[in-house]
Amino acid sequence: MRISPLLVDLYEITMGYSYFKHGKNEPATFELFVRKFPKNRNYLVSAGIDDIIDFLLDFRFTPDDIDYLRSLNMFSEDYLEFLAGMRFTGDMYAVPSGEIYFPGEPVVVITAPRIQAQILETALLNQFNFQSMIATKGARVISAARSRACVDFSPRRDHGVDASIKVAKNTYMVGFMGTSNLLAGKIYGIPVFGTMAHSYVMSFESEEEAFRTFAEDFPNTTLLIDTYDVLEAARKVIELVKQGYRIKGVRIDSGDLVSLSRKVREMFRQHGLELLIFLSGDLDEYAIDSLLKNGAEVDAFGVGTRLGTSADIPYLNGVYKLVEDESGPRVKLSPGKVTLAGKKMLYRVYENGMMVRDIIALSGEKIENAEPLLVKFIEGGRPVREDSMEEGRRRFREAFASLPGHLKAIYEVEDRYPVYLSQWLREVMSRFGVNIERIQ
Amino acid sequence: MRISPLLVDLYEITMGYSYFKHGKNEPATFELFVRKFPKNRNYLVSAGIDDIIDFLLDFRFTPDDIDYLRSLNMFSEDYLEFLAGMRFTGDMYAVPSGEIYFPGEPVVVITAPRIQAQILETALLNQFNFQSMIATKGARVISAARSRACVDFSPRRDHGVDASIKVAKNTYMVGFMGTSNLLAGKIYGIPVFGTMAHSYVMSFESEEEAFRTFAEDFPNTTLLIDTYDVLEAARKVIELVKQGYRIKGVRIDSGDLVSLSRKVREMFRQHGLELLIFLSGDLDEYAIDSLLKNGAEVDAFGVGTRLGTSADIPYLNGVYKLVEDESGPRVKLSPGKVTLAGKKMLYRVYENGMMVRDIIALSGEKIENAEPLLVKFIEGGRPVREDSMEEGRRRFREAFASLPGHLKAIYEVEDRYPVYLSQWLREVMSRFGVNIERIQ
Repeated sequence: MRISPLLVDLYEITMGYSYFKHGKNEPATFELFVRKFPKNRNYLVSAGIDDIIDFLLDFRFTPDDIDYLRSLNMFSEDYLEFLAGMRFTGDMYAVPSGEIYFPGEPVVVITAPRIQAQILETALLNQFNFQSMIATKGARVISAARSRACVDFSPRRDHGVDASIKVAKNTYMVGFMGTSNLLAGKIYGIPVFGTMAHSYVMSFESEEEAFRTFAEDFPNTTLLIDTYDVLEAARKVIELVKQGYRIKGVRIDSGDLVSLSRKVREMFRQHGLELLIFLSGDLDEYAIDSLLKNGAEVDAFGVGTRLGTSADIPYLNGVYKLVEDESGPRVKLSPGKVTLAGKKMLYRVYENGMMVRDIIALSGEKIENAEPLLVKFIEGGRPVREDSMEEGRRRFREAFASLPGHLKAIYEVEDRYPVYLSQWLREVMSRFGVNIERIQ
Repeated sequence: MRISPLLVDLYEITMGYSYFKHGKNEPATFELFVRKFPKNRNYLVSAGIDDIIDFLLDFRFTPDDIDYLRSLNMFSEDYLEFLAGMRFTGDMYAVPSGEIYFPGEPVVVITAPRIQAQILETALLNQFNFQSMIATKGARVISAARSRACVDFSPRRDHGVDASIKVAKNTYMVGFMGTSNLLAGKIYGIPVFGTMAHSYVMSFESEEEAFRTFAEDFPNTTLLIDTYDVLEAARKVIELVKQGYRIKGVRIDSGDLVSLSRKVREMFRQHGLELLIFLSGDLDEYAIDSLLKNGAEVDAFGVGTRLGTSADIPYLNGVYKLVEDESGPRVKLSPGKVTLAGKKMLYRVYENGMMVRDIIALSGEKIENAEPLLVKFIEGGRPVREDSMEEGRRRFREAFASLPGHLKAIYEVEDRYPVYLSQWLREVMSRFGVNIERIQ
């Protein structure tokens, strides 16, 4: 789905107008970075770079958009004409989707004529902040679930249509097995899952009739067993299997999931059955962690509301700041809100296959024995590389495997991952009176 | 923007298939309601009914959608053909956008052949849960701000594109002055606001040059005065006004907003200037309430992240349940999750212009001296009434004026608004063994 360049705060367009009138349109570099960790996070996952690339390559106000801007009676005809002809002609580097990053690190770097670069801000942040927040949340859920499968069940509580498909996309990227959302399944080719709701069971005279009918219609299915009495329903399922019905598993969506899942597993074991147990209902990484610590018997989780809204922290404070223009490196020095000056590059040092530290350097500076993390996706307005969900899925798997184990905790750890400033960057910052060696 | 019927959980389509195979497609009634108040809420605001109407009237799987469903290898050709021809042919009642409602009350009532009614669930909930959550959050912000103007600044943290425009729409509906979001401005005709960011000020040699340039380009504008030193910047603004520049006001986005706003107001007073003071930066109803209680001098608020994500509670637990089918009223009796049986009507009793209690009744039951709240929008698949944002704006203003004052608090009150069951509804529920007179 195309993102309109009108997804923009008015002030970007008014600032652009002032720059336009005064001929201030030299190339400038803006960087997107997250100021600090949301609560309980020890790492962040890049996401949505694919949508940002599409947005930049397709950037174009329609005649309708220009008519709308004209109707505001704020801008001259020559500025409107300038906007109508505006395309993205700059360079874009980013940490690819699925890669792990940390606060303070440049994740998207845009170099373009100042007005272009400025006007992109709102849409870039809208997509990155949301998608990275969800990818990070999904990674936490996957981590809490250990090797058990997770499925996105969130569409009914996600914040609208765009949110619903991108929750599915980004949770799949970080290792979810799939989603219940068919729109996301169609758009992204993500595996889809789902069988029945309580209303189905209630639509029949008896639970047994509902189970039998559904198992006939969908061989190898999962039956929902908590509409009335879970253990009674489990007995009916065992009976059906003995009668020759092919049933893959059961889902429990309410009640004491630890105790119920253990009892149901025990019943299945007594009958020599290897049915899967699927748990759902108000789950997130904290609930899953607690279920497993308390001995729940479970093969897969359905995770909805609290995943799709990142309910414990429903936003990521990514910002997009001017770091360099025709007069050189720029900083903002408000207390607690220091911006690192200059167009930058980001490097990661690995030892024995594990990531050990990141280094934020200046563009052009050489860092030995470190892997660059910022990849050039667009050069002079032309695509030079793609960012795909499938690649993101592989990339996340590798990145997560190289992340030190203690950082995978779902609560904040004291021993944060180290992010250093390079020698050149330290020197630039010291010129602004800021002496800083390490971000976190 | 059209909402695809593929915004649906797979299980709706699998259940539909089973109903289809067994000829279970008699008319059924499903109702959307919220189970309980999110934390600190004492009322809820209906919203998104316009989008639900559009979705229902335009309901139609495209050939592409059908191809996608076919590719899942789960469904027969005759079912796919049935889905391809499916249109919404039922009735839809709803509490119109902008009206106040309470947990337990039916807000959207759908009567349609069972498969249709079932398949609508996900999209209906996706739109209603999110939009009503935002309208309610916006109402709380408006209430905390008393008579001061509020503007939506949230697009950069909203959950995607659809979220961003609907945050603007629903906050405008509950009394916001407008939004920074031009896409929402264009689509809904909402007033748009915005002037400059810190990066603009930083793009000039001096703050004074930035202010002068911007004031020339945009007469009667608002200048952002916290890039460097707020009081110093305020002195520059006063100087510019004395030189004849027309400046409407100033915005402060960081620092101690109470103390800074008071000092700036005092400076303006000393020079006999009536400039407006605009405050922004991490605001929500709690922060605004605290600012005003502590004596901040402010004429308008810019409210962003915590508004657009409803950060204190980022979801609304609306559900959509079968309440009646060919075999009569239906209930789900799980502990803590009782569904009120039967197709219903909702009434409100007013005394001296104030709302005093609501009554949930059965459809067809006559309630004296009470106003019906559920309006018929669609009959037999045809529109019989519109739900517009402008009407919603008027409706909210009237509804909020009639809401007892103590319920406008931003924290939970003990004395909840009373919602009763009618005599007929109590009788139906008692047949299911549930004796209940009042919801809250």
